[in-house]
Amino acid sequence: MRRWLAVPVLVALAGIAAGTAYVDWSKGGEGAGLYSHEWRPEPVHGYWDPDRFYQSVGTVEGRFDAGQCIDCHSALTPGIVADWRESRHSAPPRRAPVGCPDCHGADHKALAMPTPKVCARCHAEQHDAFLSERKYGFPSHALAMERATDSKHYVDKPKAETSACLQCHSVATKCDSCHTRHRFDAAEARRPEACTTCHSGPPHPDDEAYFASAHGQRYLADGSSWDWSKPLVRGNYPAPTCAYCHMRNGRHVVADKSIWQFGLRQVNPGTAENQVKRQRWIEVCADCHDAGFARERLAELDRERAVTWKTLDRIERRLRDLRGARAFYPRAGERPPYPSDLIDTLLPSERIGFHEGQASAFYNVSPIERDHFEVWYFANLAAYKGAAHGAGSLVGEAHARISAAERAIAAQAATLDGRAAGARPDPSPLWLDGEYTRHNRENN
Amino acid sequence: MRRWLAVPVLVALAGIAAGTAYVDWSKGGEGAGLYSHEWRPEPVHGYWDPDRFYQSVGTVEGRFDAGQCIDCHSALTPGIVADWRESRHSAPPRRAPVGCPDCHGADHKALAMPTPKVCARCHAEQHDAFLSERKYGFPSHALAMERATDSKHYVDKPKAETSACLQCHSVATKCDSCHTRHRFDAAEARRPEACTTCHSGPPHPDDEAYFASAHGQRYLADGSSWDWSKPLVRGNYPAPTCAYCHMRNGRHVVADKSIWQFGLRQVNPGTAENQVKRQRWIEVCADCHDAGFARERLAELDRERAVTWKTLDRIERRLRDLRGARAFYPRAGERPPYPSDLIDTLLPSERIGFHEGQASAFYNVSPIERDHFEVWYFANLAAYKGAAHGAGSLVGEAHARISAAERAIAAQAATLDGRAAGARPDPSPLWLDGEYTRHNRENN
Amino acid sequence: MRRWLAVPVLVALAGIAAGTAYVDWSKGGEGAGLYSHEWRPEPVHGYWDPDRFYQSVGTVEGRFDAGQCIDCHSALTPGIVADWRESRHSAPPRRAPVGCPDCHGADHKALAMPTPKVCARCHAEQHDAFLSERKYGFPSHALAMERATDSKHYVDKPKAETSACLQCHSVATKCDSCHTRHRFDAAEARRPEACTTCHSGPPHPDDEAYFASAHGQRYLADGSSWDWSKPLVRGNYPAPTCAYCHMRNGRHVVADKSIWQFGLRQVNPGTAENQVKRQRWIEVCADCHDAGFARERLAELDRERAVTWKTLDRIERRLRDLRGARAFYPRAGERPPYPSDLIDTLLPSERIGFHEGQASAFYNVSPIERDHFEVWYFANLAAYKGAAHGAGSLVGEAHARISAAERAIAAQAATLDGRAAGARPDPSPLWLDGEYTRHNRENN
Repeated sequence: MRRWLAVPVLVALAGIAAGTAYVDWSKGGEGAGLYSHEWRPEPVHGYWDPDRFYQSVGTVEGRFDAGQCIDCHSALTPGIVADWRESRHSAPPRRAPVGCPDCHGADHKALAMPTPKVCARCHAEQHDAFLSERKYGFPSHALAMERATDSKHYVDKPKAETSACLQCHSVATKCDSCHTRHRFDAAEARRPEACTTCHSGPPHPDDEAYFASAHGQRYLADGSSWDWSKPLVRGNYPAPTCAYCHMRNGRHVVADKSIWQFGLRQVNPGTAENQVKRQRWIEVCADCHDAGFARERLAELDRERAVTWKTLDRIERRLRDLRGARAFYPRAGERPPYPSDLIDTLLPSERIGFHEGQASAFYNVSPIERDHFEVWYFANLAAYKGAAHGAGSLVGEAHARISAAERAIAAQAATLDGRAAGARPDPSPLWLDGEYTRHNRENN
Repeated sequence: MRRWLAVPVLVALAGIAAGTAYVDWSKGGEGAGLYSHEWRPEPVHGYWDPDRFYQSVGTVEGRFDAGQCIDCHSALTPGIVADWRESRHSAPPRRAPVGCPDCHGADHKALAMPTPKVCARCHAEQHDAFLSERKYGFPSHALAMERATDSKHYVDKPKAETSACLQCHSVATKCDSCHTRHRFDAAEARRPEACTTCHSGPPHPDDEAYFASAHGQRYLADGSSWDWSKPLVRGNYPAPTCAYCHMRNGRHVVADKSIWQFGLRQVNPGTAENQVKRQRWIEVCADCHDAGFARERLAELDRERAVTWKTLDRIERRLRDLRGARAFYPRAGERPPYPSDLIDTLLPSERIGFHEGQASAFYNVSPIERDHFEVWYFANLAAYKGAAHGAGSLVGEAHARISAAERAIAAQAATLDGRAAGARPDPSPLWLDGEYTRHNRENN
Repeated sequence: MRRWLAVPVLVALAGIAAGTAYVDWSKGGEGAGLYSHEWRPEPVHGYWDPDRFYQSVGTVEGRFDAGQCIDCHSALTPGIVADWRESRHSAPPRRAPVGCPDCHGADHKALAMPTPKVCARCHAEQHDAFLSERKYGFPSHALAMERATDSKHYVDKPKAETSACLQCHSVATKCDSCHTRHRFDAAEARRPEACTTCHSGPPHPDDEAYFASAHGQRYLADGSSWDWSKPLVRGNYPAPTCAYCHMRNGRHVVADKSIWQFGLRQVNPGTAENQVKRQRWIEVCADCHDAGFARERLAELDRERAVTWKTLDRIERRLRDLRGARAFYPRAGERPPYPSDLIDTLLPSERIGFHEGQASAFYNVSPIERDHFEVWYFANLAAYKGAAHGAGSLVGEAHARISAAERAIAAQAATLDGRAAGARPDPSPLWLDGEYTRHNRENN
């Protein structure tokens, strides 16, 4: 390490250590984790992460049994009482009903907002499976909350933006993300909407991809007449839903077949581990399709990824060259430092892409960096999710966006280059290189 | 007022007065209202605003009773006859059927296209409630038609564009916008699609917001099995639809709980009136949620609005500065005047945003003005509607668009500034100011 | 023809002739058609175009009857067996069941992937109607596969992109695009999702248009309760679906009422042929609406087209002027030649729009050409499909995009012009001309 770097880096490391020591895990206090001393929870966090932040309403005093709860709440909040009455909890086979105090406690001044641990008292198998996903790292449901809140950009951005994130990332901290309270229905979670409530929009267009596919269109056409009380095993459904493929046989593990992860990293699809995952996919598809078809569709996905990453790499190299030439405008030192980032304040640096520093990606960057983020994240994911779910039109559309973005970024880059060099840019590196053309000639 | 302004202004005022006097309210004549002498109705207007423009088809002569109408139209237009047969009109409890001539008249050469006044003969309570919305001003359903057609941009734009507007704005002038003829079903209007037929797309993404929310996803998953004959009172539905919350207990008033209006004006959410409206919202939410949760979600919406308006204000100030420096390109005098606008012709001026002149917003403006319009209207509304309906992904996405737009507008502005000043722009006003950062540091 | 053009053109023609002669129609060989010698099929092509490319799986030996197939496949692929059991094929009235070998053959080493010709053995009327569409040229379903694969851009683009095209263009080569195997249900194909599986997204936003219309919203609200076993004849359905209007009375012809074709060419809507088609439309609408209403809505569509084409023509003229001034950047000679295009390699030329050369439209063009493509194709189609399906919000949104694109293209053009001429561009041609304004003043 260069000597002039040593001082600020040491200062920064000391700051991080101090920050970590400062973490206050108490309820109603500050957030947990490396960056948590930098942000304070909002009251609404109590609903998204009850274990850490929920405070009971204190307006009613006394201890109540289930019948008493129902008596009052039939008048106060009849919607949730009606849901509970229709749920299995109100009349489970071969045991006593699961009433309000079983999950919330009986003391009205110390009510609990139930978390997965509460559900696990009866549904241990599902909860264990759910937690086992942690071994696959992030992205995974079990890590969704801590990875969201223990991050730079959670500190850098206003609460009005980050609170919206937690509504979905709370999938890690409460079970009613998929099994809406107070029905807690398995049938609901078998349907795609249980997933697309969160998995939609540019950062995770699973909704768009599934419903654009032949599978999703079959579901839209006559899914309302299927028997959703049946478990998700082969032969039971005329077309697959999210959970049918991703939570095979109802097992609460989603990440065990993930080859390309979330589409945000370039991976080698041919590793031994990925061969195993591929075989798992083929087995799922073979419930309805022949194995050869499944294999070819997966190969098609690999080819899609290869083409897209080739382009994304080319774009990223272009940005690295610009950064090397100090051609970004405005440069890192010309824009405000990130609130939480001591190193960034002392040594401002441009960051390219997600993995050099998430915070940089969404805001406070120059136009060309933002455009890169947009194509690398949103267009890339649309192509990936489209190809993975058999939504051809999404793939075509996303490739067109990536192609258009490459042109636009090249045009911007030429301007920035020219401004930096004081000369008209030579078009040759991009336009005459012909890599794209050569690739196609070789592979078509 | 400056003296050199007086003459053209007086001329313009005289012109407006003359124009108003010229209005011809007769059927088949010109439109009504201040600007109506500038446009002529198309034949299709007769279907959107029947009271003013509908002309009966004159091909069949004679007076007919309901049975005779049904006899012929069973062969001619069997679809609507089948609808009517299934409607309550064909067999109402405790009274005679409501037949064709009851609404359309018996004389086939002078048939009426029924308007709300016709429906009000039996449904006075609903009609009175509907009309009572006028006191909330615009936007409101009861004023939707007159405010659309009596406006500058209705004159400025080609009919091919404005006719499309009336299909939805006719909600003020006919009841079958929500209760499709000839079923006129209350059950239909309880479902979200009755509303999203119009409330969708960038200028009012309620469709996108509702269906992206947990409420909407519940509806999509199993709404087809709910009993839609039940009135919209608490306890009757497992998840709310548009009408459930916005037309509580089936009351035909939508605007009485509107705090942030349509999201297009910055309002003070803490006025006494808005406190009353807030309490009304909390009561709705409490059908299923605890009041504290409802209060926090509303506070979250307020915070979202505060952040977005802060950014929008900053962008608008930037445009005002540019206008002050005469840096728009092309400037107002360099583009064609609006057809209907005498003042604009005599004294061309750039207009920023909706409220300085709607017509300017959509077209005939320089790129930076259009970009401002886009972010102020469409991205702003997506953020607002997303936050209001609990659609977190929409909020995140919209904030990203607003943030990207601010950068792009800043880049354009720097170019325009530089061109106007003949010098390289100083990046400091935007990039080093750090307002965003300071705001976050103070509030996170 | 100029003399210096003669040599390369003759060489090119000779090359084309040689290429055609080289076509190998054998299975597993190369593609068919003029450009087919330039591309090799992927294994997945066997599923999209079975007649040409399908190879039977060879792992199982022997000849089997229907019962034996079912025995094994109940365990291997229970999903498709369950589908077949519920299909009419398993128990047709007044004839023996249609079992697996009837369509696939009995020899497991030489299984066939059934094509329309196989279905035509029993469903000749539908197949004949389907094939009769060829006389309307392209776009039409019957020509969807050959026109997609026998084209320049199918060669120019990577397989990872073009394979996605075939999933939908295979509508020409297999019947289960609309009647999903192994139910092959007429009821399914009557629902809009059978069509929107392919007809969605920017190049054909029928999905977006239909579901944004009052028709589509009615379907969404209560379509799941309609009786889909009924044929598509008037009086049977409360609102139309795609097939109800476009495949009147279930006839397998979609193109016979197409006035504006796909919206990609400017047509004269008043030709004798188009008057006949217009009358056919009015007859469809009159199942539920009065004929005058239908006529006016069609006239509204014509007006929409007139306005949009006026703008598109103006934009195209602008691009032609730029090309004439050699102002594109990069120019055709500065970018890599298309792999398959001999003429383009010898005589590089900029191509504007679809019909001068499809390949140029999607990629490998300068930013202004791409922007033109985007507005001419995607925004144009959204306006057209919106107007045709009564989706007003789509029309407004698309017109706004077209208008914004014209401004952006004009700004780019001014920069390119200025760079080419070395002078500041004169804004007058676009901004002071006032054509748009004059048009409106004359027609409103």
